[in-house]
Amino acid sequence: MSCDVRFKQACEELGHDFDGEIKIGGNYVPLVRHEDQIYISGQVPRVGDTVVVTGRAGADVTLEQAQLGAKISALRAIALLQRSLGSLDKVRRVLRMTLFVQCTDRFTQQSEVADAASELLFFVFGEAGAHTRSSVGVYQLPKNATVEMDLIAVAE
Amino acid sequence: MSCDVRFKQACEELGHDFDGEIKIGGNYVPLVRHEDQIYISGQVPRVGDTVVVTGRAGADVTLEQAQLGAKISALRAIALLQRSLGSLDKVRRVLRMTLFVQCTDRFTQQSEVADAASELLFFVFGEAGAHTRSSVGVYQLPKNATVEMDLIAVAE
Amino acid sequence: MSCDVRFKQACEELGHDFDGEIKIGGNYVPLVRHEDQIYISGQVPRVGDTVVVTGRAGADVTLEQAQLGAKISALRAIALLQRSLGSLDKVRRVLRMTLFVQCTDRFTQQSEVADAASELLFFVFGEAGAHTRSSVGVYQLPKNATVEMDLIAVAE
Repeated sequence: MSCDVRFKQACEELGHDFDGEIKIGGNYVPLVRHEDQIYISGQVPRVGDTVVVTGRAGADVTLEQAQLGAKISALRAIALLQRSLGSLDKVRRVLRMTLFVQCTDRFTQQSEVADAASELLFFVFGEAGAHTRSSVGVYQLPKNATVEMDLIAVAE
Repeated sequence: MSCDVRFKQACEELGHDFDGEIKIGGNYVPLVRHEDQIYISGQVPRVGDTVVVTGRAGADVTLEQAQLGAKISALRAIALLQRSLGSLDKVRRVLRMTLFVQCTDRFTQQSEVADAASELLFFVFGEAGAHTRSSVGVYQLPKNATVEMDLIAVAE
Repeated sequence: MSCDVRFKQACEELGHDFDGEIKIGGNYVPLVRHEDQIYISGQVPRVGDTVVVTGRAGADVTLEQAQLGAKISALRAIALLQRSLGSLDKVRRVLRMTLFVQCTDRFTQQSEVADAASELLFFVFGEAGAHTRSSVGVYQLPKNATVEMDLIAVAE
């Protein structure tokens, strides 16, 4: 099964669709490629015009909701890769994921939030999805998003 | 008009000058080049010995002041590139900007703060300034700076 | 004196040993190499199963304790490099260190915390340890760790 089929499956399971335009606010670009390295801008869990998971993990947002946010951010990043490369089968390796989690002062499960995104990368890319990672609990994020995720990947 | 001329113009508009020594505290270096990639250390809005924009966005610091801080941090990063390369015309692409904003728990305009730095990168470098970006709201920054910005760029 | 001897010496001075398995939680990998670049996942000051420096710098954690945490995180990152490369003498350059510090709203010595890790990199690698750096104060970290550090290095 190709990476693209698995990506479609993952989107369907979450009930979201990233076929339309992926909106990016501000004066920058969603993706830059330099030789075989691809940098992807920080993705919040936005679907269309709406950030669908907002608020503070540990207070108004549960671990499960934050994990959903991490998955949607990851799907957005993967959708950007697919759009740029034509097919996700061209991804050779995910080098780095950084996940920022808006949380309370006592919420220490940033790794568990990130696991949801990491599992998705493994699911879609298999061994090529085995990445390094940093998970950090922060005070706020753009548009009150619960999570923000950026990526560096390598493609053929 | 060369990138260097536009950089000089941007500095003059802000009324700051980065011709002197750019002071970096601590036991590290402001810039490392590996092949064509250049990493730049996190820049706070310091001019000479003084961090000129300090405090918390959303409380004692307005959006406009935080944007000024982001511009000064960006100018410092660009000044480091210029010093290292001789001319900014040698910059092929800005790959990544990460902007950390010291803010209140309700301040969600990190992207708007980052836009000020992004616009400056576009102004100075043109298309080569089109970068990926992550904007994050954090709890504190070195020397109570309102913003800290790091960069990865590619040069000839 | 080789980098490996200096690393052993630094570990002995701290009284910690990273010879056993370096445990990494979650669904990701501690290190990814792409060509000559090596990305290392965010390291908290864990020794064996225990995160040995936890809590908030500026409140329950002193500057000195946070610096100890930064050193242990750095030693873990270096131990991962050694395990992957066979010898630390193969490290050509440390490109980037990002240090996140869990702190109070008034703690502004993130750079001083990072200095402890930077000095260790210089001690072990000499000139090859001269790196770029970002130091950021955050609201929480996985497992209540006081610091988290990630690295990008270049090796032969």
